[in-house]
Amino acid sequence: VTAKPLLAALAGHRPSIPPLWLMRQAGRYLPEYRAVRGRVNSFLDLCFNPDLATEVTLQPIRRFAFDAAILFSDILVVPFALGQPLSFVEGEGPRLDPIRNAADLGRLTATGFAERLSAVYETVGRIRRELPDPVTLIGFSGAPWTLACYMVEGGSSHDFARTRIWSYRDSAGFEALIGLLTEAVTEHLSQQIAAGAEVVQLFDSWAGILPEGPFRRFVVEPTRHIAKAIHHRHPHVPIIGFPRGAGLLYDIYDAEAGVDAIGLDTTVPLGWAVENLAHPYQGNLDPAVLLAGGEALERAARTVVAGFRDQPFVFNLGHGVLPQTPPEHVAALVDLVRGESPIRSGDLHILA
Amino acid sequence: VTAKPLLAALAGHRPSIPPLWLMRQAGRYLPEYRAVRGRVNSFLDLCFNPDLATEVTLQPIRRFAFDAAILFSDILVVPFALGQPLSFVEGEGPRLDPIRNAADLGRLTATGFAERLSAVYETVGRIRRELPDPVTLIGFSGAPWTLACYMVEGGSSHDFARTRIWSYRDSAGFEALIGLLTEAVTEHLSQQIAAGAEVVQLFDSWAGILPEGPFRRFVVEPTRHIAKAIHHRHPHVPIIGFPRGAGLLYDIYDAEAGVDAIGLDTTVPLGWAVENLAHPYQGNLDPAVLLAGGEALERAARTVVAGFRDQPFVFNLGHGVLPQTPPEHVAALVDLVRGESPIRSGDLHILA
Repeated sequence: VTAKPLLAALAGHRPSIPPLWLMRQAGRYLPEYRAVRGRVNSFLDLCFNPDLATEVTLQPIRRFAFDAAILFSDILVVPFALGQPLSFVEGEGPRLDPIRNAADLGRLTATGFAERLSAVYETVGRIRRELPDPVTLIGFSGAPWTLACYMVEGGSSHDFARTRIWSYRDSAGFEALIGLLTEAVTEHLSQQIAAGAEVVQLFDSWAGILPEGPFRRFVVEPTRHIAKAIHHRHPHVPIIGFPRGAGLLYDIYDAEAGVDAIGLDTTVPLGWAVENLAHPYQGNLDPAVLLAGGEALERAARTVVAGFRDQPFVFNLGHGVLPQTPPEHVAALVDLVRGESPIRSGDLHILA
Repeated sequence: VTAKPLLAALAGHRPSIPPLWLMRQAGRYLPEYRAVRGRVNSFLDLCFNPDLATEVTLQPIRRFAFDAAILFSDILVVPFALGQPLSFVEGEGPRLDPIRNAADLGRLTATGFAERLSAVYETVGRIRRELPDPVTLIGFSGAPWTLACYMVEGGSSHDFARTRIWSYRDSAGFEALIGLLTEAVTEHLSQQIAAGAEVVQLFDSWAGILPEGPFRRFVVEPTRHIAKAIHHRHPHVPIIGFPRGAGLLYDIYDAEAGVDAIGLDTTVPLGWAVENLAHPYQGNLDPAVLLAGGEALERAARTVVAGFRDQPFVFNLGHGVLPQTPPEHVAALVDLVRGESPIRSGDLHILA
């Protein structure tokens, strides 16, 4: 049995206290993050600065002693390294020069991909060297479908209709984009593992907008290819797949995507997961209840812990930490999951 | 057995050709709609003009002989009639003066609710008088949770975090808003039925962002109250509930929400619905494939028809018609579902 709680749970062990980390645990809700962010002009400058990216990755580990650190980066570094111009407009999210059809694919190139991301891999190595021993380092990538959504739309969208329309109108052209991304994501994860990542997570944030047929083709199939290649090259590195919003298609993903653990979004009923999933799972507290705090947070967190007790389970949110979340709520959550009984403000009158 | 195909299917009959209508079948994709829209300043003026709202409701019936007409209106007329200022900014969607806490509820009033919507009920009566005999008239409302989302956020949002945060922080205050909306929606549907609506649909467009507990409280419970009241007052009027994105929670909704038929979004696998749902269902072609057209449309539509053959089923999309959809694609879909074999442009060389 490994001494690292996260690796043990992903290997199927069932600890009495689940390992714990939070998606976007490094980020705007932390004042020390905002201080570092203020030292560079753009978000991408932060992602590509090994000193600063290492620093912000480690900040939440120092504060909360999470069981895992996740590389500070962005899923869109993959299209960037394929040659698609990318910028982040403050308060408006990412902007990419859109790829709208097969002809536009000529603007992308895999040549020099890993070189353009060398700062990211250098960051991974530094974090690994600085992490305390029981803390696991997670690398990550966007999954091909989700990356394609942003690349085709040129940014975020509420329904990514352009992406779906292209996939229906010219499935061969769209498959070529997915194929290119499948190779790039495999390379990106493999480089992170070579640099020191002990687990990798695939974020398929827009898996939940697809009907069953396209879900199998654009979510499950590419993930299966990536997982197979990673398992071949790095047989001891577990892959967490997170097909956010997959709903009734979660069981297909669990059975066929070839990943080692399943990320659950907030909508997955605990009982359903325990009864139906073959792999260990990670999730799924609502980030809005973490922001809200108080009794609602305590009740919701206890429900998740109780629902997944004695399962191969990693405590996490069902989506990233919201920027307005008070850090004290995160501290309270950590105490609660680890079974310490924090003194809540509402209890202080008892002591007075 | 009723002679109206939609009512027959909703009553559990299994016709060899399913009844057919499309969400947003009246709207911007039709040139005759855009002509009428150009005659008024604002979208709300169109909703509250019985002549014009009747006209645009009937346009797709004339063109495509759908089995149902759905009142042309908007879900946000309910908050408007509760006293919340509402406007539609062209290209940006709806704007409401946000209701953010229990104190803000004082700005809403149920007094005069039905009077402020009298133009809508007049429209319902006119449409019913003008509809050809086998065509069923559907009234509708937004469901309380979805209306609350827009009312709290002040418009659309990608995650309606503010709404969820309020529901966690002050559940009593938020329940008061849901309670007010439950009464208002019941009244709104009841008035539409009194004016001539033969079926009503409850749109819960944001049901899919809630964990199981809040889903039960804010989606299932209010819907059950509304359905019970409507069934009591109007025992022969079926209610279609559409909890879009409910995913793994669809079965709870089917079992407990008290509606007569279930609207399926695009992500629901046909086989799952056939095996698991107790009520008749409606859906669920991807609007993006209708826009794309061609062989992809043909294949996807045939898959839906085949998957639901001999079931109590209403053919529809899984979401509304997209504004850029070519009307010819809708015509091709109608022919296809009704089993006529349209001459596709790709076949014309055979005739040459």
